[in-house]
Amino acid sequence: MVDIAARVHNHKWKIDPIVRSLIDTDFYKLLMCQSVFRNRPDTQVIFSLINRTKSIRLADIVDEGELRAQLDHIRTLRLSRGESTWLRGNTFYGKRQMFRPDFMEWFEGLQLPPYHLTKRDGQYELTFEGTWPEVMMWEIPALAVIMELRGRAVLGDMGRFELQVLYARAMTKLWEKIERLRKVDGLRIADFGTRRRHSFLWQDWCVQAMQEGLGASFTGTSNCLIAMRRELEAIGTNAHELPMVYSALAHSDTELAQAPYQVLADWHEEHDGNLRIMLPDTYGTKGFLAHAPDWLAQWTGIRIDSGDPATGAETAIKWWQSQGEDPRQKLVIFSDGLDVGVIEALHRQFAGRVKVSFGWGTMLTNDFRGLVADDALAPFSLVCKAVSANGRPTVKLSDNPNKAMGPADEIARYKRVFDVGVQTAQDVLV
Amino acid sequence: MVDIAARVHNHKWKIDPIVRSLIDTDFYKLLMCQSVFRNRPDTQVIFSLINRTKSIRLADIVDEGELRAQLDHIRTLRLSRGESTWLRGNTFYGKRQMFRPDFMEWFEGLQLPPYHLTKRDGQYELTFEGTWPEVMMWEIPALAVIMELRGRAVLGDMGRFELQVLYARAMTKLWEKIERLRKVDGLRIADFGTRRRHSFLWQDWCVQAMQEGLGASFTGTSNCLIAMRRELEAIGTNAHELPMVYSALAHSDTELAQAPYQVLADWHEEHDGNLRIMLPDTYGTKGFLAHAPDWLAQWTGIRIDSGDPATGAETAIKWWQSQGEDPRQKLVIFSDGLDVGVIEALHRQFAGRVKVSFGWGTMLTNDFRGLVADDALAPFSLVCKAVSANGRPTVKLSDNPNKAMGPADEIARYKRVFDVGVQTAQDVLV
Repeated sequence: MVDIAARVHNHKWKIDPIVRSLIDTDFYKLLMCQSVFRNRPDTQVIFSLINRTKSIRLADIVDEGELRAQLDHIRTLRLSRGESTWLRGNTFYGKRQMFRPDFMEWFEGLQLPPYHLTKRDGQYELTFEGTWPEVMMWEIPALAVIMELRGRAVLGDMGRFELQVLYARAMTKLWEKIERLRKVDGLRIADFGTRRRHSFLWQDWCVQAMQEGLGASFTGTSNCLIAMRRELEAIGTNAHELPMVYSALAHSDTELAQAPYQVLADWHEEHDGNLRIMLPDTYGTKGFLAHAPDWLAQWTGIRIDSGDPATGAETAIKWWQSQGEDPRQKLVIFSDGLDVGVIEALHRQFAGRVKVSFGWGTMLTNDFRGLVADDALAPFSLVCKAVSANGRPTVKLSDNPNKAMGPADEIARYKRVFDVGVQTAQDVLV
Repeated sequence: MVDIAARVHNHKWKIDPIVRSLIDTDFYKLLMCQSVFRNRPDTQVIFSLINRTKSIRLADIVDEGELRAQLDHIRTLRLSRGESTWLRGNTFYGKRQMFRPDFMEWFEGLQLPPYHLTKRDGQYELTFEGTWPEVMMWEIPALAVIMELRGRAVLGDMGRFELQVLYARAMTKLWEKIERLRKVDGLRIADFGTRRRHSFLWQDWCVQAMQEGLGASFTGTSNCLIAMRRELEAIGTNAHELPMVYSALAHSDTELAQAPYQVLADWHEEHDGNLRIMLPDTYGTKGFLAHAPDWLAQWTGIRIDSGDPATGAETAIKWWQSQGEDPRQKLVIFSDGLDVGVIEALHRQFAGRVKVSFGWGTMLTNDFRGLVADDALAPFSLVCKAVSANGRPTVKLSDNPNKAMGPADEIARYKRVFDVGVQTAQDVLV
């Protein structure tokens, strides 16, 4: 029995929207947005899309009209009543009313600001300009739209059964990973794969497969919409944009040196428990820990997001020990470049020594490597970053020089101020 | 939008019927049934289910109540108006009105006769008794029901995503076969997989995947219902039951020796062109060809259904040559124990020397080998055969002694009458 009305309705769609909700985004974006809304609401920022994989000429692959239609659609989105109710009423990290009434009122009125789109050298230049709290909300949907449009361009030429087999292969591939992870005793792992996912429906499938396959070892998803619909924990804390913008706003080298700690001081006031997770690598983990204020040692844990992850975790363990803290009580969240082999190895090395947890991203929600000719669906390294704040450029160094960004003179200045020594370069796959 | 009425309707089902149409059967059954209806309508036969894979204890796996419910459901089926219209109006093998009005009238009134079901030694004894034209129509649905109920028993314990991944793996497996077959230049291949399929929906998927993946190289399906719905050619000619029953009815050794040729004489009168395909192995291919009447050499081709297929085809080629026929004008249809490797090898050996064609069965529609624990979904060797005709036992020898059936003394007699020498035994997988 065909539901005729549904079919007629479906055929009225002008586009098939990739992002259909303002909370189809990472949970930490909302936490950070509230923090920014409270502490630095008037900062003028520019966010910019950066394709680190130059060999993929996005402007040749993705149709500009389609891209504009998707971005325009996102600007029509508003927080729905049910979404607002969930954000106001749900328990996040064991806490009720995580989001304050003034923030929720602002969020309920939010429309994403205009975008600027041009082409250059086969790439799109896509930027967003305005106050920090509203511009920052573009990051995840902008990435998701570009990733999915690139996928659609490839899928458009495939037959119906060829497509079904493609997804069959991708499902099998993920399930084999889940079967391996099932054997990792005491595993705790969450989905962090929204931004570079193959598509929303695919991410939703992956999350449900993880739920069935891993049971309690699967701790939740960073995607708020999926967390709401599947009644899962929403997972996430904070990201590089906070120290990057705070640092850009510093008026002197002394203020700059303190900026990353100011971020965490503001965070400390607002959050406790499992939300007190530091992200130390923005300007080098080693220097960050060496100069950290005493109170930071009492924080719950650390997120390792660049550089060699084992080295990063060992550095953190030594630092905790030097501060008289027991590493076994500390949480280490690995979230960079994970796939099953790396997860197994890191778990083997650190389980029992610290509380280990994983935020699994692209290789969970977009491992289509090897599934089509020319590997045209393999994920690539796309980011959307704050590039300036109140007219001043931002800088990121990270523990991997291949991930550094900002003007060369500013990078040199930051390296000096943050006492960054020699760094080991690592390939950036995604 | 949920279609509430459809959902309520679905929940009213008492069972999920495995066979839902009298034409969910092999096309050659209908051709043979019409021939029997014309030539031997009053023959009393018994058909019996035989599980050649004794290690699979069907009566322990398949619930008797469920089996009875499915068989009872089949007895409620009648030829529908649309099915009758298709059979009367469609072109089969380029011919209109393949089915005569008197046969169609009989078929429109057909209800399958009662069945007899008991258990012994962990196996079901399932027999059908009555006139030949009605009893013979049980063969395919009975096999399909048992195969699918055995599958359902295994699938019942699996989770939703585990199930989806199972089918994903099976789809991938078939698609990889199709990708290999796509490279076989000039391939002609049809689906012969109804009887031992995993399920109807799965067979329907396999057929459509073959359509998309192989294009014109996929020549059709033996399944009438799928041929009708997917607008494909219905494929098939005749099978062992004709010579087996004709032979059982013979009154003397002389009549017995002629029985297999009498089958083809009757067939010759009724059909021409691509329907004149002989099946020579019932009592040994070598003897059959050696004693064949002259007019048989002019037939269109031969189906090789037991023994080493290459040997069988070489034997046929030599025979045609000895009869002054050009083998390059002759059709050789391979239909026994096929999978991609065998198909590739046979095609390599015979393409150009004869017209090669393949009827691909179980490994097309039921290759779930290696996909679940203990290989509990691997296909097995189940057949449903005429075991007696007018109270006399039937005998099959075939070119593989492992496929022989009948009472020992009768087998000895047939071997003598048909001059069957030493045979090479081959494993029977399905």
